[in-house]
Amino acid sequence: MGQDVFERGLDIRKAVLGAAYVEKSLDAADDFNRDFQNLVTEYCWGAGWGRTALSLRDKSLLNLVMLGALNRSTEFKLHLKGALTNGCSRDEIKDTLIQLAIYAGIPAGVEAFRLAREVFAEIEAAE
Amino acid sequence: MGQDVFERGLDIRKAVLGAAYVEKSLDAADDFNRDFQNLVTEYCWGAGWGRTALSLRDKSLLNLVMLGALNRSTEFKLHLKGALTNGCSRDEIKDTLIQLAIYAGIPAGVEAFRLAREVFAEIEAAE
Amino acid sequence: MGQDVFERGLDIRKAVLGAAYVEKSLDAADDFNRDFQNLVTEYCWGAGWGRTALSLRDKSLLNLVMLGALNRSTEFKLHLKGALTNGCSRDEIKDTLIQLAIYAGIPAGVEAFRLAREVFAEIEAAE
Amino acid sequence: MGQDVFERGLDIRKAVLGAAYVEKSLDAADDFNRDFQNLVTEYCWGAGWGRTALSLRDKSLLNLVMLGALNRSTEFKLHLKGALTNGCSRDEIKDTLIQLAIYAGIPAGVEAFRLAREVFAEIEAAE
Amino acid sequence: MGQDVFERGLDIRKAVLGAAYVEKSLDAADDFNRDFQNLVTEYCWGAGWGRTALSLRDKSLLNLVMLGALNRSTEFKLHLKGALTNGCSRDEIKDTLIQLAIYAGIPAGVEAFRLAREVFAEIEAAE
Amino acid sequence: MGQDVFERGLDIRKAVLGAAYVEKSLDAADDFNRDFQNLVTEYCWGAGWGRTALSLRDKSLLNLVMLGALNRSTEFKLHLKGALTNGCSRDEIKDTLIQLAIYAGIPAGVEAFRLAREVFAEIEAAE
Repeated sequence: MGQDVFERGLDIRKAVLGAAYVEKSLDAADDFNRDFQNLVTEYCWGAGWGRTALSLRDKSLLNLVMLGALNRSTEFKLHLKGALTNGCSRDEIKDTLIQLAIYAGIPAGVEAFRLAREVFAEIEAAE
Repeated sequence: MGQDVFERGLDIRKAVLGAAYVEKSLDAADDFNRDFQNLVTEYCWGAGWGRTALSLRDKSLLNLVMLGALNRSTEFKLHLKGALTNGCSRDEIKDTLIQLAIYAGIPAGVEAFRLAREVFAEIEAAE
Repeated sequence: MGQDVFERGLDIRKAVLGAAYVEKSLDAADDFNRDFQNLVTEYCWGAGWGRTALSLRDKSLLNLVMLGALNRSTEFKLHLKGALTNGCSRDEIKDTLIQLAIYAGIPAGVEAFRLAREVFAEIEAAE
Repeated sequence: MGQDVFERGLDIRKAVLGAAYVEKSLDAADDFNRDFQNLVTEYCWGAGWGRTALSLRDKSLLNLVMLGALNRSTEFKLHLKGALTNGCSRDEIKDTLIQLAIYAGIPAGVEAFRLAREVFAEIEAAE
Repeated sequence: MGQDVFERGLDIRKAVLGAAYVEKSLDAADDFNRDFQNLVTEYCWGAGWGRTALSLRDKSLLNLVMLGALNRSTEFKLHLKGALTNGCSRDEIKDTLIQLAIYAGIPAGVEAFRLAREVFAEIEAAE
Repeated sequence: MGQDVFERGLDIRKAVLGAAYVEKSLDAADDFNRDFQNLVTEYCWGAGWGRTALSLRDKSLLNLVMLGALNRSTEFKLHLKGALTNGCSRDEIKDTLIQLAIYAGIPAGVEAFRLAREVFAEIEAAE
């Protein structure tokens, strides 16, 4: 796919996670993680998020239940902020996390609601 | 929640999975699994699917990535048929499974595309 | 199931996790997590824990191995305290965690024994 | 631990899974899997199941929820038969699987109830 | 990354899994799974397997424990054949699966040894 | 297997994780975790790591992808240090983690690279 997929991925990654955050990640890349950062940008954000049959809002909701089911808390919080950026309402996120709790188990739901509360508090504190 | 949640769950369960399939499941319930069948109908379909901030189409897509990540193949196929019933296009399902492959790993994607192909073949065979 | 299941669930939840803890959780519920809190109380504690073929002690031990296998550390610690409340001895918990280590893998066991040690230290500090 | 742990493990393994089944497994061992068979007998059955703070019935129930949560269907069926051998009633197994469904997610429960039905049918067919 | 990564990935994929198998997969690609097949070839086989700090033999062993831990049986068997193609001895595979059993749990090991036996039988039957 | 397996396990455990660390763990063992510590030493380190078809370097790399896939962060960091002790280069670890990201999903990779960075910083700080 190459350079154009990378560029598209970089644009989407910045739009969803915030340009400042992404630029900081890329600037901090060193010999150990630079290849991985590039892979994430091109493959995950370009080849995946760059697809067009689903909206960014749709993909954000998919990510929340996957990250919740896979128990990846740091990434979950990052993508919860991304979901808000992509226009998901709190009611949509609430119903998404209840669907997660039923299908991935109550402890996955408890953890997701706890992390969501942390994210909302961080947003309020930053306002 | 009670009887009304159960009734709403039963209606949605039939609408998504097919009335014939659901009635057969409930008719086949015995002393061992009847309580569980009722629990699934009331909580999973009534209290979860019965919520209104997301569409049935949205919830179908969420289920596909959760069932793919959790590696539940029989349920995945059932809900892939449900996703088609709920109006998801094949292009939307394709992009959903690519998102799954990236976030839950390539083997989850390989399995999901294999199962989807089986479902599509079953549908064509039944036509 | 409805109101009576909710009430039974609330009683059991308080008995296992402590009335003060549960009341604090419920009092802190807001528009975002209130529905989920109610779902947990009715569905998890009423419809699940409220069943009678197994004792509370049995269900506590089941929860420890599930939470350990599913890698949910915060909930694991909460339910380890609940297991003690439900009358599980430290020897029973020890053998439960060794069974976990063998079936879910040594790292699950290492984590579970580490968390148990934290819980025991917290209990001693509070005495 | 050594030979005595191995011998104790072999006795318990035969008692739970059936002497004929275990002897067939051990007789079929070849250069590739013999070490693993011995490891399972000594560590899993001797060092784990050979512990004494929990009953065999307790450990059978723990295994059902772990194998259900870990999605290991072949082993789940084997240990469901073992649970019956160890004196677990169908009502106890039912409540165990409902606890599994709530904590590990509805799809884990659906699969477990499906497998249990298969086991019960196999037992009836053999009678 | 682009066309050269794709070509390198295609070469490695054929070398590990067999040219006939891969060509059959690619020829069978349709509108639904073609993009995914290309993604697998470019990213998984080109960007991943195409890296050079580890040998193909090393990556085969890594894949066996990941696929075993993630419970992906069809892919596990495919990659077990690939491991033999990449020069792994049966003794190396045996010790790899014992390491898997210890870290991911005995049921993961039981399943892996069962699948390995199937693969070895298929290879003998084809000779 | 017994005492000689335990002794071999203790030697390997100290060689990989550091004698000071292991002795501290064993000295801190109490009635609750002593049996488990002994089980880990004999079974995991003696019967598993003590096998000889794979090198310590090989087993370290296998552990990194298993611990990454199983989401066990504390153990992951411990074994990343062990991998360096066992002679794995940073380039080998880098490619191992990229293989993990592709097969277990991008979030597993993100977490693994984050933890690796922490380990490298801890090592530099200690120098």
